[in-house]
Amino acid sequence: MALRVGVVGGGQLARMLIAPAVELGVELRVLAEEPGMAASLAATAVGDYRDAETVLAFARDVDVLTFDHEHVPQEVLRALLDAGVAVHPGPDALRFAQDKLLMRARLDELGMPQPEWAAVAEASQLQDFLDAHGGRAVVKTPRGGYDGKGVRVVSAAAEVEDWFTALAEDARGGELLVEELVDFTRELAQQVARRPSGDLRSYPVVETVQRDGVCAEVIAPAPHAAQRLVDVARGIGESIATGLGVTGMLAVELFETADERVLVNELAMRPHNSGHWSQDGAVTSQFEQHLRAVLDLPLGEPSPRAAWSVMINILGGPAEGGLDDRFAGAMAEHPGAKIHTYGKAPRPGRKVGHVTVAGTDLDDVAYEARAAAAHFDA
Amino acid sequence: MALRVGVVGGGQLARMLIAPAVELGVELRVLAEEPGMAASLAATAVGDYRDAETVLAFARDVDVLTFDHEHVPQEVLRALLDAGVAVHPGPDALRFAQDKLLMRARLDELGMPQPEWAAVAEASQLQDFLDAHGGRAVVKTPRGGYDGKGVRVVSAAAEVEDWFTALAEDARGGELLVEELVDFTRELAQQVARRPSGDLRSYPVVETVQRDGVCAEVIAPAPHAAQRLVDVARGIGESIATGLGVTGMLAVELFETADERVLVNELAMRPHNSGHWSQDGAVTSQFEQHLRAVLDLPLGEPSPRAAWSVMINILGGPAEGGLDDRFAGAMAEHPGAKIHTYGKAPRPGRKVGHVTVAGTDLDDVAYEARAAAAHFDA
Repeated sequence: MALRVGVVGGGQLARMLIAPAVELGVELRVLAEEPGMAASLAATAVGDYRDAETVLAFARDVDVLTFDHEHVPQEVLRALLDAGVAVHPGPDALRFAQDKLLMRARLDELGMPQPEWAAVAEASQLQDFLDAHGGRAVVKTPRGGYDGKGVRVVSAAAEVEDWFTALAEDARGGELLVEELVDFTRELAQQVARRPSGDLRSYPVVETVQRDGVCAEVIAPAPHAAQRLVDVARGIGESIATGLGVTGMLAVELFETADERVLVNELAMRPHNSGHWSQDGAVTSQFEQHLRAVLDLPLGEPSPRAAWSVMINILGGPAEGGLDDRFAGAMAEHPGAKIHTYGKAPRPGRKVGHVTVAGTDLDDVAYEARAAAAHFDA
Repeated sequence: MALRVGVVGGGQLARMLIAPAVELGVELRVLAEEPGMAASLAATAVGDYRDAETVLAFARDVDVLTFDHEHVPQEVLRALLDAGVAVHPGPDALRFAQDKLLMRARLDELGMPQPEWAAVAEASQLQDFLDAHGGRAVVKTPRGGYDGKGVRVVSAAAEVEDWFTALAEDARGGELLVEELVDFTRELAQQVARRPSGDLRSYPVVETVQRDGVCAEVIAPAPHAAQRLVDVARGIGESIATGLGVTGMLAVELFETADERVLVNELAMRPHNSGHWSQDGAVTSQFEQHLRAVLDLPLGEPSPRAAWSVMINILGGPAEGGLDDRFAGAMAEHPGAKIHTYGKAPRPGRKVGHVTVAGTDLDDVAYEARAAAAHFDA
């Protein structure tokens, strides 16, 4: 009788759990939002993850429940625990990924380095923060944002008037998160796997390149990283994983600043785009590691299998024809490139696949990855 | 619209095509012999592969048809071609994998080095061969043998009397294959991928260790292999792939002899146990390569990603409990081991999974792989 892992959400992260589950011999079951999603091969149910009855029914036949995203409501998560379902990560950890204000407050308690931030309920408070921080800042909706959505760089409170209006109409009331506009030199990401038993394994810190608020490229490990930087990033990741009681994969997005600081930007409590390189570049991929962690199995070796891995997202995809129409060209010119597509229809800006190349020379690896991925552009 | 590959047969070879198909974005469809087989996740039909109507109906919705085994009858394969189905490998190639007498005759025509052999229709002919070859030889049924089945080492014709009797009763009539008992020092395997367009990619020659006629262990690349041996093995593999018109993966099992010869033992026209190491040890696994080859896509880089890879088969599995009961112990002690299980019930001698370890020191790699696999023994 195989171990059974249930995944709420049918996107590409759930899809990329299929390969390690099949190889290991774990039965993966997916509750998809709709038919025909990226993870449809493993979909055993289709329904609304906001409906407790739907999720409870899905969870009845699995050993552990985990997630493709962090949007399952707390009340649904609590109902699962009340019903005796093993849920990883659990609601006490997930709330910090669901609410950026809770996250900022908790990371302050843990002493984690962060951008200066404040919770603002009205325009005047935001204006005060702007005045105190050079007239520009980043405003975020505490809930529901991803890939740059729910994030605005503003120089006047009026630029988020619509958000304040929405808050005023929201029964829950609430506040917006405002953060200093960090003068960063680059963005990094630290991934840590943590078992319910508390055991941790950390991946090498990576450099991520964002375009229009979306991850475009990842270099693993982060180039030109002093040992101090590596140690600081790892320490932050492990402190947050333990401090927030995360189970499964945690990704901590970081800013490296011109004045040598490392500041926490965002958290994700699931496999993350910054770790896709590990499928082809690490001994244990983040997807196998997530399965092992949520099943409370001993964690795998996270070390790289090559000196360098570069992952390039396929954003949007071909304007005409499917991604597979581009296989022949990409494969002919780049026989060492690992091509991954998600079974999603191409659409401007949409993450529809990625390409990873691993090797010994960073310039060669980056060139191969970028050139292979370029075959899938519009 | 994804490319669609149909696989006849639901065993572990079909199962191991699932991971690369999902990652690449190829739709895999499996015609399984029965429900609940190793490849059941991708099974879209259950039926008898010997029935032309069943296979034709299954093939109607795929771009190319390929196989988990070589047992689909020629008449069914011909009916598929007549119906316009793309079949790889095709019947003209597969017949040499289906009939060992045809294979031996054709390899002689191609000038491939082979054990001395003969076709024997009756006991007296076999006795003559025995008398001419030191009194012992290997007798094989030309069709249907695998993993040591249909193979006997004999010193008297009477030891295969039952096979002669069966031949006499077989409407097709026929002969047995007798081969000299080769004094080999070790067994090797050469894998080659070939596209319908003729393009070839060869994997490094590997050493295979058989126990009771079943593959137990594979070391990639073959240790202590002189360049001459590497070149000879590769030449044999590529000559056979081209000479027999193989499409997809070809495995050539070889004997290395005490007198420095390399002789062809067996052929397999599909992914093969001797190539499982490539899932974790090569840039392009034999399973991704087979998908690319049968779809006539450019072939991937077959080179190793580590100096050494060692694959150990899990034969039989635990006497009690499932393979997953052994995950915790194996993973705790061997965090770098890649564990693969096939969703098959443990049974003495049955291939139920394998473990691969890749690394820089052969002794360390072999120790880790053997020790990790030992956790899954009875």
